[in-house]
Amino acid sequence: MTAVQRVCFTLRLRADRLDDYLRDHADVWPEMLEALSDAGWTNYSLFLRRGDGLVVGYLETEDFERAQSAIARREVNARWQASMAGYFESGRPDGALEELEEYFHLA
Amino acid sequence: MTAVQRVCFTLRLRADRLDDYLRDHADVWPEMLEALSDAGWTNYSLFLRRGDGLVVGYLETEDFERAQSAIARREVNARWQASMAGYFESGRPDGALEELEEYFHLA
Repeated sequence: MTAVQRVCFTLRLRADRLDDYLRDHADVWPEMLEALSDAGWTNYSLFLRRGDGLVVGYLETEDFERAQSAIARREVNARWQASMAGYFESGRPDGALEELEEYFHLA
Repeated sequence: MTAVQRVCFTLRLRADRLDDYLRDHADVWPEMLEALSDAGWTNYSLFLRRGDGLVVGYLETEDFERAQSAIARREVNARWQASMAGYFESGRPDGALEELEEYFHLA
């Protein structure tokens, strides 16, 4: 059995673009989903705190650094990130990702 | 197969108590872990954003409302929450829990 890394990160959305952003995520491109799976992103969820646009991502992968490099190399990811850029405070969803530290786990 | 609900919530820690809080979580009482498992809290992780004391919780359960009620009825939980209260901005870790909305999932 391979060890799984549980990853949690945060992003911050622009409050005035929440509805457009959610609409896009109800219909993520199939090629983008396939690229994420190929890159080892599993049990990947995104959650929103509507009050302030905080986004929390959670996923499981063998090695998050490798999973990030693998998705960054895909052309479909460049197109997806470009189409998301306007929704984020930073203008760069992937660059603004802040990784949190796991301090407790109960299987 | 029973459907699983993926739950994400946030809490806010007092910046001046981070180290004590983390020390306690390196050694959670076995009775508290058992009570959580009995109450249906599975794959439960807690993550910290050190910069501002944001805590993110993630878990999987059949019905979060039921899982919350089940843990709230346990005496060990009352003792655990009382011992945690001083670490939180609100003074009430369980009462200050803010649940987020899942808008994307990739298995």
